[in-house]
Amino acid sequence: MNFQFGVDYYPEHWPEERWETDVRLMAEMGLKVVRLAEFAWNKLEPAQGRFDFTWLDRALAVFDRHGLKAVLGTPSAAPPAWLIAAHPDILPVDSEGRTRGFGGRHHDCQSNPTYREHVARIVGAMAMHYGKDPRVVGWQTDNELGNSHEDTCHCRHCKTAFQIWLKEKYGDITDLNRAWGTVFWSQTYDSFTQVPTPALTLTAHSPSLLLDWKRFHSDLIVDFQQKEIDLLRAGTTCQFITHNFMGYFDLIDYFKLATPLDFVSHDQYPWGFWDVPPGKNPGLLASTLDLMAGLKGQAFWIMEQQAGPTGWQILARTPRPGQLALWAAQSIARGADTVVFFRWRSCTVGTEQYWHGILPHNGVPGRRYEELKALIAALAPVMPRFEGALSGAEVAIVHSYEQNWAFEIQPHHPELDYVKFAQEVHAAFFEKNVPADFVSDRADLGRYKLVVAPLVFLDLPGVSDHLKSYVKAGGHLILTVRTGVKDTANVCLAENALPGPYGELLGIEILDYDCLRGVTVPVTLGQISGQGRLWWDVVTLKGARILASGTGTDHTGEPAATAHTSGKGVAMYWATVPDQDLMAVLIDRALVDAGIESLGTSAPGVELARRRSAEGDFLFMLNHTSEARSQEPGQGWIALVGGTSLAPFGFSVFFKPVQEGKV
Amino acid sequence: MNFQFGVDYYPEHWPEERWETDVRLMAEMGLKVVRLAEFAWNKLEPAQGRFDFTWLDRALAVFDRHGLKAVLGTPSAAPPAWLIAAHPDILPVDSEGRTRGFGGRHHDCQSNPTYREHVARIVGAMAMHYGKDPRVVGWQTDNELGNSHEDTCHCRHCKTAFQIWLKEKYGDITDLNRAWGTVFWSQTYDSFTQVPTPALTLTAHSPSLLLDWKRFHSDLIVDFQQKEIDLLRAGTTCQFITHNFMGYFDLIDYFKLATPLDFVSHDQYPWGFWDVPPGKNPGLLASTLDLMAGLKGQAFWIMEQQAGPTGWQILARTPRPGQLALWAAQSIARGADTVVFFRWRSCTVGTEQYWHGILPHNGVPGRRYEELKALIAALAPVMPRFEGALSGAEVAIVHSYEQNWAFEIQPHHPELDYVKFAQEVHAAFFEKNVPADFVSDRADLGRYKLVVAPLVFLDLPGVSDHLKSYVKAGGHLILTVRTGVKDTANVCLAENALPGPYGELLGIEILDYDCLRGVTVPVTLGQISGQGRLWWDVVTLKGARILASGTGTDHTGEPAATAHTSGKGVAMYWATVPDQDLMAVLIDRALVDAGIESLGTSAPGVELARRRSAEGDFLFMLNHTSEARSQEPGQGWIALVGGTSLAPFGFSVFFKPVQEGKV
Amino acid sequence: MNFQFGVDYYPEHWPEERWETDVRLMAEMGLKVVRLAEFAWNKLEPAQGRFDFTWLDRALAVFDRHGLKAVLGTPSAAPPAWLIAAHPDILPVDSEGRTRGFGGRHHDCQSNPTYREHVARIVGAMAMHYGKDPRVVGWQTDNELGNSHEDTCHCRHCKTAFQIWLKEKYGDITDLNRAWGTVFWSQTYDSFTQVPTPALTLTAHSPSLLLDWKRFHSDLIVDFQQKEIDLLRAGTTCQFITHNFMGYFDLIDYFKLATPLDFVSHDQYPWGFWDVPPGKNPGLLASTLDLMAGLKGQAFWIMEQQAGPTGWQILARTPRPGQLALWAAQSIARGADTVVFFRWRSCTVGTEQYWHGILPHNGVPGRRYEELKALIAALAPVMPRFEGALSGAEVAIVHSYEQNWAFEIQPHHPELDYVKFAQEVHAAFFEKNVPADFVSDRADLGRYKLVVAPLVFLDLPGVSDHLKSYVKAGGHLILTVRTGVKDTANVCLAENALPGPYGELLGIEILDYDCLRGVTVPVTLGQISGQGRLWWDVVTLKGARILASGTGTDHTGEPAATAHTSGKGVAMYWATVPDQDLMAVLIDRALVDAGIESLGTSAPGVELARRRSAEGDFLFMLNHTSEARSQEPGQGWIALVGGTSLAPFGFSVFFKPVQEGKV
Repeated sequence: MNFQFGVDYYPEHWPEERWETDVRLMAEMGLKVVRLAEFAWNKLEPAQGRFDFTWLDRALAVFDRHGLKAVLGTPSAAPPAWLIAAHPDILPVDSEGRTRGFGGRHHDCQSNPTYREHVARIVGAMAMHYGKDPRVVGWQTDNELGNSHEDTCHCRHCKTAFQIWLKEKYGDITDLNRAWGTVFWSQTYDSFTQVPTPALTLTAHSPSLLLDWKRFHSDLIVDFQQKEIDLLRAGTTCQFITHNFMGYFDLIDYFKLATPLDFVSHDQYPWGFWDVPPGKNPGLLASTLDLMAGLKGQAFWIMEQQAGPTGWQILARTPRPGQLALWAAQSIARGADTVVFFRWRSCTVGTEQYWHGILPHNGVPGRRYEELKALIAALAPVMPRFEGALSGAEVAIVHSYEQNWAFEIQPHHPELDYVKFAQEVHAAFFEKNVPADFVSDRADLGRYKLVVAPLVFLDLPGVSDHLKSYVKAGGHLILTVRTGVKDTANVCLAENALPGPYGELLGIEILDYDCLRGVTVPVTLGQISGQGRLWWDVVTLKGARILASGTGTDHTGEPAATAHTSGKGVAMYWATVPDQDLMAVLIDRALVDAGIESLGTSAPGVELARRRSAEGDFLFMLNHTSEARSQEPGQGWIALVGGTSLAPFGFSVFFKPVQEGKV
Repeated sequence: MNFQFGVDYYPEHWPEERWETDVRLMAEMGLKVVRLAEFAWNKLEPAQGRFDFTWLDRALAVFDRHGLKAVLGTPSAAPPAWLIAAHPDILPVDSEGRTRGFGGRHHDCQSNPTYREHVARIVGAMAMHYGKDPRVVGWQTDNELGNSHEDTCHCRHCKTAFQIWLKEKYGDITDLNRAWGTVFWSQTYDSFTQVPTPALTLTAHSPSLLLDWKRFHSDLIVDFQQKEIDLLRAGTTCQFITHNFMGYFDLIDYFKLATPLDFVSHDQYPWGFWDVPPGKNPGLLASTLDLMAGLKGQAFWIMEQQAGPTGWQILARTPRPGQLALWAAQSIARGADTVVFFRWRSCTVGTEQYWHGILPHNGVPGRRYEELKALIAALAPVMPRFEGALSGAEVAIVHSYEQNWAFEIQPHHPELDYVKFAQEVHAAFFEKNVPADFVSDRADLGRYKLVVAPLVFLDLPGVSDHLKSYVKAGGHLILTVRTGVKDTANVCLAENALPGPYGELLGIEILDYDCLRGVTVPVTLGQISGQGRLWWDVVTLKGARILASGTGTDHTGEPAATAHTSGKGVAMYWATVPDQDLMAVLIDRALVDAGIESLGTSAPGVELARRRSAEGDFLFMLNHTSEARSQEPGQGWIALVGGTSLAPFGFSVFFKPVQEGKV
Repeated sequence: MNFQFGVDYYPEHWPEERWETDVRLMAEMGLKVVRLAEFAWNKLEPAQGRFDFTWLDRALAVFDRHGLKAVLGTPSAAPPAWLIAAHPDILPVDSEGRTRGFGGRHHDCQSNPTYREHVARIVGAMAMHYGKDPRVVGWQTDNELGNSHEDTCHCRHCKTAFQIWLKEKYGDITDLNRAWGTVFWSQTYDSFTQVPTPALTLTAHSPSLLLDWKRFHSDLIVDFQQKEIDLLRAGTTCQFITHNFMGYFDLIDYFKLATPLDFVSHDQYPWGFWDVPPGKNPGLLASTLDLMAGLKGQAFWIMEQQAGPTGWQILARTPRPGQLALWAAQSIARGADTVVFFRWRSCTVGTEQYWHGILPHNGVPGRRYEELKALIAALAPVMPRFEGALSGAEVAIVHSYEQNWAFEIQPHHPELDYVKFAQEVHAAFFEKNVPADFVSDRADLGRYKLVVAPLVFLDLPGVSDHLKSYVKAGGHLILTVRTGVKDTANVCLAENALPGPYGELLGIEILDYDCLRGVTVPVTLGQISGQGRLWWDVVTLKGARILASGTGTDHTGEPAATAHTSGKGVAMYWATVPDQDLMAVLIDRALVDAGIESLGTSAPGVELARRRSAEGDFLFMLNHTSEARSQEPGQGWIALVGGTSLAPFGFSVFFKPVQEGKV
């Protein structure tokens, strides 16, 4: 159920007499769907139990008249003042013990039973009222779950919920003590009620406690959403349920959050969040979209696509003419089936006055309206042809929220960052125009020729067998430093030398290592030289062959990267974090060995992206520069939108039908 | 009632047998007035209701004997330990909910009724005891009001006081909801008791709430002072009331704080506050003094003039020989009628041990004593001739505390600072030796040929009409980016395109803008080139002419500055924040157009300042450099102090009588 | 009672069946002593009053079988969860009023009577059980006292204890008021119960209160340890008591903490604490060891000598091959009689997973085991010959914790740091291979030819007379800026000009000074030129002669350093903080004048250190570089370990017997 283009709208922010004008302008622009109501709790329930859907009904009538469908957000992100006044216990408490007061949004704790009760009432009432309304095609749960919490809440309800979560996980407190190794520093607990949340202490909490806390908090949010989904499923028919995700947001296991949803939605703000350009480069934006596609292995929606300059107290720069359209096209190129712009009109009130919409504050359509209107006219007709299609990548990058949490707890090197490492790996493929999927560590890897799994630090259940099977069956696998170090409780594996369960697969052993504080290690690989960064494993070969070696003072002659044939496949190891040059050449070699081809060579700043449908391939050529570019798609491609001449911030779409004898 | 020179003295810090020596040394130096008692609450009221004025009476007798008059400070800045011990509720609570304990000074909250009651008792008792004492010529309320509060207090009394303030302002909660736009994020309130102070929350408070909070807090302090003034006025005759202001301090609307006072006093610490020289350059010091003169449009006192090296835990550098006298002369040159040095003798105890006085710790007069004694001998005889006179400026710079607060809440660009912009404008005139006054946004502008009003962001009641009238009547007005953006509730104006109510006056319209994060825009104006910084408005001309244009990548050809003839005057617009070069040339042109002349050209580092009395003009030439300078005053000037040869850190004063046929 | 080499071991962290293997490996390596149990409270007392020593008894049996003796730590640093759950009042409260929760270690307050009661019970029980056990040779009190407290606790017990401490010190509150000068800012107290701890306030606390708070806090910890010592002394025979100190840790007066101990132990982590190499250079490490020797003027133990890479969340670099052994040799060269490595095996659980031991996580001996085994084989046989011997230095550097606290409270210049200044002075001697002791300000100075006493800021009782007597008797003394400024209550001396009580000794007077913010002053001394930094005293000569003078703009011709003959000795004054070049030449001249010779000239990066026993001198030559070095010891030296060729990170030991006619 897709609509190509839509917009986020807040009828409650504007005089009712303006609605007709707004919706007419939307329709003229080609918009087909609107998201509504996700912060309107107080408008929908101005006093406890007193519901008022009349204004929203009237708004839906206007949309309906102009042919726009609606997606409703549950308003749990905006508990009203009357609710907090009656139940101040709902307010969250931070790790320093400070209650965070009313103001902003999501001034609540998702573990609070009172809050959950009130959320259930409003969500239930909305489901009952709109669950069978044909004008409403779907629902968004809450809004950007987790976003409004600075780290996590430590209120008494969270503490109890954490202790219950631990009891469910470990059963007996002695099992928790054993798993966490609480014998260290006499931290042994007699009962679950003694286990603290990792609030402010004098030194540092146990890494095992910290990891379970992060898991608990993620599960709490997933459970919070599930309660909303249960109510919506019970009350609705034929309406989808989605949620607006936030790219690399790290406090929730997004694979789990996505599971019960019909599809994933994403909020894409290329220059949002106060970045100084060029804060997010095109490759990083692309990787964000690829991650969103990877959460369910499906095409997705953009629920909020940047439609103007962004800012709260501070503003980002204003996108240059053409850039908003280009970014929307990129979202589509990488798997979005519907793009909903945020927001219709720049809001005059509240914290987001400078998070601009398509229209300026005064409501008069201007250059942004015209630019996006033209985009819709160009792309909307083509989009149904590749609905649901993704890139058909032969490369996968394994992504795991638990691994990231472990590195947030113990970064090792101040600059060692799990997500950044994944992004650097993705960038190496992006630069070569090789599509690469993000997948979970338990995903089916059969369709991939090459898998990169950076920093498989925790030996999570089943993962090592899964990766070994992949290689035995013929896969090419790249593993890296800090693999096979810990068990699932964040305790160091002590039975074998590193890389623990992966030693035999990789044909290596690691008896010493070096955290590269303040230094890098020169590495040579044929005629290429790069740098090993952040970490260096001193590798002893146990059957593997050397791909690249260290030079210089401290690690000269030691392997920087190895490869080991295992079964029908090859298992490679990066014994350091490669810099851009070194990674490029290591990836190049791996691509050649795995027999993977790129989409072609592109001019500087021009991105190539593919959506592969049953009908054939759709190739997007996206010019992210402020200069005109000329780009050839190669043989057999038919221009659908634009052509080989790309205006500044311009794009084009080509098509190549499925050919006989090729997949 | 002026005394030319005085000193701040704390008899309670020293053995009584030393008083006679100290006061004799003061008299020999030429000092005529002393400020006393502003931290002596516990000495004056050592237990609740038990007053002891005997020691102060004895001190006043010593001063009287040596011909010095006294100014008494009310001691409300130093609530004693017995008061806090009895009423810990008086302690302030910060925005994180932390009670700030006893220690330092002003460990209190100005909204606390108990504290106010005790303040009223001590102030009332002092007024009764000294209100008719001829040795006491005046009063200082409190000390540097607002200085000891880090931002604002959030105690329960402040919360209630804020809610009452809001109720008085808005009457009905629905009016507040409408004005603030609380519909955003469901922040609608049912009653004033639900409105929070902007204490720690999870995200960010409403900009409308934040602006009213800043207004409330300023009004609270103004009201706190008013209560003291009422008690003093009731109990005194022929004694003036003043307060020691702090230059660019931003938490109080100084125009309001100054209103009920007889005159403004100011604390001038050129190298105070731990600055690394050259932290405050002469132009910035000059602008501070001009702001002080502008608060009431009157000559003022310096109540604390730096008399030695300053410091608490960290010290600033020691002023070079001559520099203390030069700074005092600068204060006089720019409107001070009496200069009181802080302090007499370096204190041996407490937090301000390193905030040195005229005498060193051991009490033996040294080089600072001799330097300031010579200054007094030179200037005291001349000062009565220009008492009350100011510069006679033809340029005004509009200053508004409310506008500043709005930018503190939403700076837009991290480096966009309302006060700094005003200082840069002032500096452009200072560099040209053109006197420029600071005035409020409702001041009478009739006597000015050129008015610069930077960042008239909020459309405060009456201001746009006031400025338009000024132009129509023949004035030259410069407005800038971010003018006419918001209403008085900090809500975006949505009826018109920017610059809102100023569009017709300026002959422009702004349909797009660009926050210049990480970039500047080259601007050319004739043969001069400069840079546009921080912000760029994309201006559409609606009758205005272009003064300067953007070049380079993003904004080439777009107007950087415009001018529009309107009525008998001219309204100019700066569509960006000019850098120093660009501002210099824009100001140059505006001065020529408005027919304004400078005081002359001066050697590098030499400041020219004028006081224009009925008798004639007094010209100060101040050498802020460590090298000798030669400076000619021009024709018709008679040397009163010094001459055209200026020693390092030296100064001179010239006089030119009123000439026939000129004003 | 020394054992040359030992290790820290946690039998409770490992399966009991592993113990035999571990201890056998220790014995094979040459280790003779093991430290145990200092975090094992919960294992020893798993519930209140229920003790379990059986596991520790079994562990001691294993050690005994392999010939290793034991040192037991009292486990007060790790109060168990059951204790905190029963008495949450034990938790510390920080200066912001936040209770610090359970987690990490030392989540307690040493002033808490309940905590102290429980500590007494466990320590008493351990003393009773092991006090006469011949397998236990000694005790360590607690662990790194003071380390786990971020600054200090402000709980209600601390407040009361502070007030009692003040009452004991001052007797009457009026005496405290007089001593502190509370008349400043009306801070006068009516009773001790009104005196606050220096918790969060609005401005800044009195420097007098702050200094007494630091003294109180130090005394609190010293008293806390004394209670443990009393229990141990009461229950033990022939067992020593020590504590593991932390080099330059600043919150406790280490001279006082060391007094009741049999000897000092120290934890030496050259690359610990997350430093980026080269964070601690060899000279700084040497000075740390010299300070440890100076606390009691005795040889000492290293209780934790770095045995592998260190880290918590972040890791330091891995020491290069040879470096761990070199660092241990340096400890011995500078006064350690026994070196205990931390720890045996890298821990798999808890916060210190990455604080690596001799063995890696998997327990298989590797390069670190072999390296340290070789070290032991080389040095253990030689060490008894110089047991108890120190360097025989002729230079002393006065060190005072109280002076340091005064500068922590008021640093004057942001970069003026008491400890750093002392380290710079030590480094000047280290670079010349001149042994220099650290001594307290009341130590017997008779054996020293040259004493440097930097920053004798507070005029502590007896110190000025002590230093004057030293000079009169023929000593050479160097004093510096900020000497004789304050009394013992941190109040400025006002009777004389600076340097207060030292004026006559030094033959100078200081009437002006200059905090060198943002500038330095060029200084010339013969053909050498250096820079005066941070501070400049304007010195008037009153009999002294000039050693070096300022040049440049502000202080040209003013003395930078002076000397004054007084009695049989010479008193020198540094009127500025010399940079490295200037200090080197000032020290050179002082060494020549005092007739002090160096141990010789060494190759770059080679340290020379001496231990002088009754038998003769032992010379260590330590190569801190990664390159081979050749180093001659001079005439008459016999090689004991190694020779004149030093491998990278290698060392050698030479011996020269006592000669007739020389000491």
